[in-house]
Amino acid sequence: MKQLLFGVFENAQSNDSGTATWRHEDNQRIDFDSLDYWIKIAKICEAGGVDWLFLADAWGWSEIDGVRPDICDEEALDLPRLDPAIVVASLLQCTNRLGLVLTGSTLVEAPYSFARRMATLDHLSKGRIGWNVVTTGTAETATAAFGKVMVKHDQRYEMAEDFIELTYKLFEGAWEPDAVERDRSGRYSDPQKVHRILHYGPYFKCEGYGNSHYSPQGTPVIFQAGSSPRGIQFAGKHGECIFVAGDTSFVSKQTNKIRKEAALNGRDPQSDIKVICAFSCVVGDTEFEAQEKHNTILKTQRCNVAAASYAMFTGLDLSKYDRKTKMSDLETEMSKTQVLRFGEVSIGEVLDNWHENGVRPKPIVGTADQISDVMSQMAREADLDGFMFTPMSQPSSTIDFIDKILPIMRSRHVNKKNVCDQFLRQRLLGTKTPYLSASHPGVKYRVQRHKKPLNS
Amino acid sequence: MKQLLFGVFENAQSNDSGTATWRHEDNQRIDFDSLDYWIKIAKICEAGGVDWLFLADAWGWSEIDGVRPDICDEEALDLPRLDPAIVVASLLQCTNRLGLVLTGSTLVEAPYSFARRMATLDHLSKGRIGWNVVTTGTAETATAAFGKVMVKHDQRYEMAEDFIELTYKLFEGAWEPDAVERDRSGRYSDPQKVHRILHYGPYFKCEGYGNSHYSPQGTPVIFQAGSSPRGIQFAGKHGECIFVAGDTSFVSKQTNKIRKEAALNGRDPQSDIKVICAFSCVVGDTEFEAQEKHNTILKTQRCNVAAASYAMFTGLDLSKYDRKTKMSDLETEMSKTQVLRFGEVSIGEVLDNWHENGVRPKPIVGTADQISDVMSQMAREADLDGFMFTPMSQPSSTIDFIDKILPIMRSRHVNKKNVCDQFLRQRLLGTKTPYLSASHPGVKYRVQRHKKPLNS
Repeated sequence: MKQLLFGVFENAQSNDSGTATWRHEDNQRIDFDSLDYWIKIAKICEAGGVDWLFLADAWGWSEIDGVRPDICDEEALDLPRLDPAIVVASLLQCTNRLGLVLTGSTLVEAPYSFARRMATLDHLSKGRIGWNVVTTGTAETATAAFGKVMVKHDQRYEMAEDFIELTYKLFEGAWEPDAVERDRSGRYSDPQKVHRILHYGPYFKCEGYGNSHYSPQGTPVIFQAGSSPRGIQFAGKHGECIFVAGDTSFVSKQTNKIRKEAALNGRDPQSDIKVICAFSCVVGDTEFEAQEKHNTILKTQRCNVAAASYAMFTGLDLSKYDRKTKMSDLETEMSKTQVLRFGEVSIGEVLDNWHENGVRPKPIVGTADQISDVMSQMAREADLDGFMFTPMSQPSSTIDFIDKILPIMRSRHVNKKNVCDQFLRQRLLGTKTPYLSASHPGVKYRVQRHKKPLNS
Repeated sequence: MKQLLFGVFENAQSNDSGTATWRHEDNQRIDFDSLDYWIKIAKICEAGGVDWLFLADAWGWSEIDGVRPDICDEEALDLPRLDPAIVVASLLQCTNRLGLVLTGSTLVEAPYSFARRMATLDHLSKGRIGWNVVTTGTAETATAAFGKVMVKHDQRYEMAEDFIELTYKLFEGAWEPDAVERDRSGRYSDPQKVHRILHYGPYFKCEGYGNSHYSPQGTPVIFQAGSSPRGIQFAGKHGECIFVAGDTSFVSKQTNKIRKEAALNGRDPQSDIKVICAFSCVVGDTEFEAQEKHNTILKTQRCNVAAASYAMFTGLDLSKYDRKTKMSDLETEMSKTQVLRFGEVSIGEVLDNWHENGVRPKPIVGTADQISDVMSQMAREADLDGFMFTPMSQPSSTIDFIDKILPIMRSRHVNKKNVCDQFLRQRLLGTKTPYLSASHPGVKYRVQRHKKPLNS
């Protein structure tokens, strides 16, 4: 069977994914602002052979008609949150193999400094970094916070194209891979291999030397999660690990579209990209025990969370519509992913679903064997390359996943617990080198004239 | 005698301070892109009871008439460099008491995201963070790199005023210190204590909720180093630890100006600010041994480094002037600090001095007793509160400083090796709380209506 990859989802705030499970007594992410919490999570993931720890991020907050509802603070729905780049950096010391993937917004970051931050992480981690490229769904509030003009959905993708092109130039083209010689009796770097980047895009300009030299992976592994038509275009072109979410039938269609888009861009739709499905579960020794466990988590959540949380992701206040209205009748300039995934479903059903799951996929509740069966079947039917586990309560959910599900999945899908590959890209894509595949669009910005090509 | 504070200077590149000592065989900073290097330095500083490890930063590069000379790469004069925020974050795990001070530019950062980054560091470090506020002397090249319009020297300070005001609002006013309750049977935060920041400055705008809640110190300890008249105004108003550099007579005048400026701003010129002198030394068991040691370091440096390095700091190519020209005849829009400090000295003397020291003060070369005597006398005559040691070779210089100089200085100036104060501000300023002193301009942005004042 196909090898599968496994990641664990996290974010540096008390809750995630639009639900509020922080009241559950097992949930230690209530202390997301302590280093001890993060070390615990990272060590569990590393010891369990998880392929990557993923740090989500957001910049906006929930607003309904321009007002942030009190429930956002009472339930820690959107804020407070911390900087995922700092969290990831703080975990470099206690991890050696674990991939560290962090979210970076092309809406609010400056590409020049962002590239330095990512290169620094890649250097200090010895090539274990991934960048989850987001255009920031909560754009109304995020742009207000940064004192910027609102940028609409599709235009945000144009902006992302411009942003990522400039970062490719800085990652791949500013310093040739062998520019640094570090030779005390010779020279530190070869000036012929250090280049000034000239970029005059519609959104971003740069006339600068790259601050950091070529990092272990050059470009961090590109993760992407857009599911709108424009998002899939972007993912098929740039993404190396691409997230999908939903039921098997929906995910299967998405995977298909993504692989087609990759092929249209001259990329191998299987070896050049990995499609990763968001996934959640509650495990018990019996189905009944699992169900009880799930109910306990859900019961801790107050019922008025759903509308405020949905508004944060989409800008849409579902509470003001008739519960029978079809989702397909709504329009938003924020995250289209969270509207489109519900298709023809009614608003009432969406609110009920959101209360249980938020943006998290509906968890599979059952025994380890049952859950593994569902995952295996889904992987096969939807042509998946892996799963990203979204815990409902930390670290207990992740411990369950690692101790109970992973061993079964590994026995079926050849995912080794102990990996020797030092570089995240090799671990994920199975490439010979830690660098971008030859067909990746970032490669054309690489300048390398003096030695044999990197992808030989 | 007055208690003195001691910091160690670092930066995430191979060389620092405008010299190129990387060829010296003891100098391990040649591997500044490895986590092991940084862990070594941090552990040495922590074990030695150093008050803070300082991370400098820059964004530009050296240019002479628009061209970056080859020597910059050959000698690693300006590039490559890494992101100091990531380096500092990577050291949180191996340090418990050491203060961590990082440089943040008000020219190129976005205040909204910068505030989150600093707050994250302050949370995860449990209140050990300082922010060295810089306006970025290398503004010509830095703005070109970021695709921005060049901002002139004094205007950069207006920009810094706007920037720091917005960050005070985010640090102090967005979340009241007791807003987060984290009460599973009550609420996570009190919505009445979470405020939207409205800021419409000449350079920066914000209509946003603070991403991070009130951090252990609220505002990180403000470090400042400007020595131009405008720089001293800024330091006297905002700075808590303020750097000076030069000989005793110059430093004495600067210290006096800074304390006066602090008093003009209603701050206590002694207890509210600490004046810290940049300082370098080479220690030997005999004066002769120390001199030999110094010569060995200097000899590793090529002689054509000085002009390129000076150009980077000032935009001025001294090699095209007559060596007898007085420095006071030159004008620059970049760092005035590096022009003014030479006063009436000739260009030839500046180049010779720069070859030896760069922006580093001329090291005191001698035995531990001799060096300590000079420091003690300087501290007394110039009314200093401490020193920041700039190593010529890492980690050997820092180990020398900690093992040989600090014990003598401690015996004279009551600087404890083991501090119990968890918070950097208390350690440095001796305040009762970890928060800004009541007279600091940041305090007026604090919103706190429900409990007794923080500074009681």
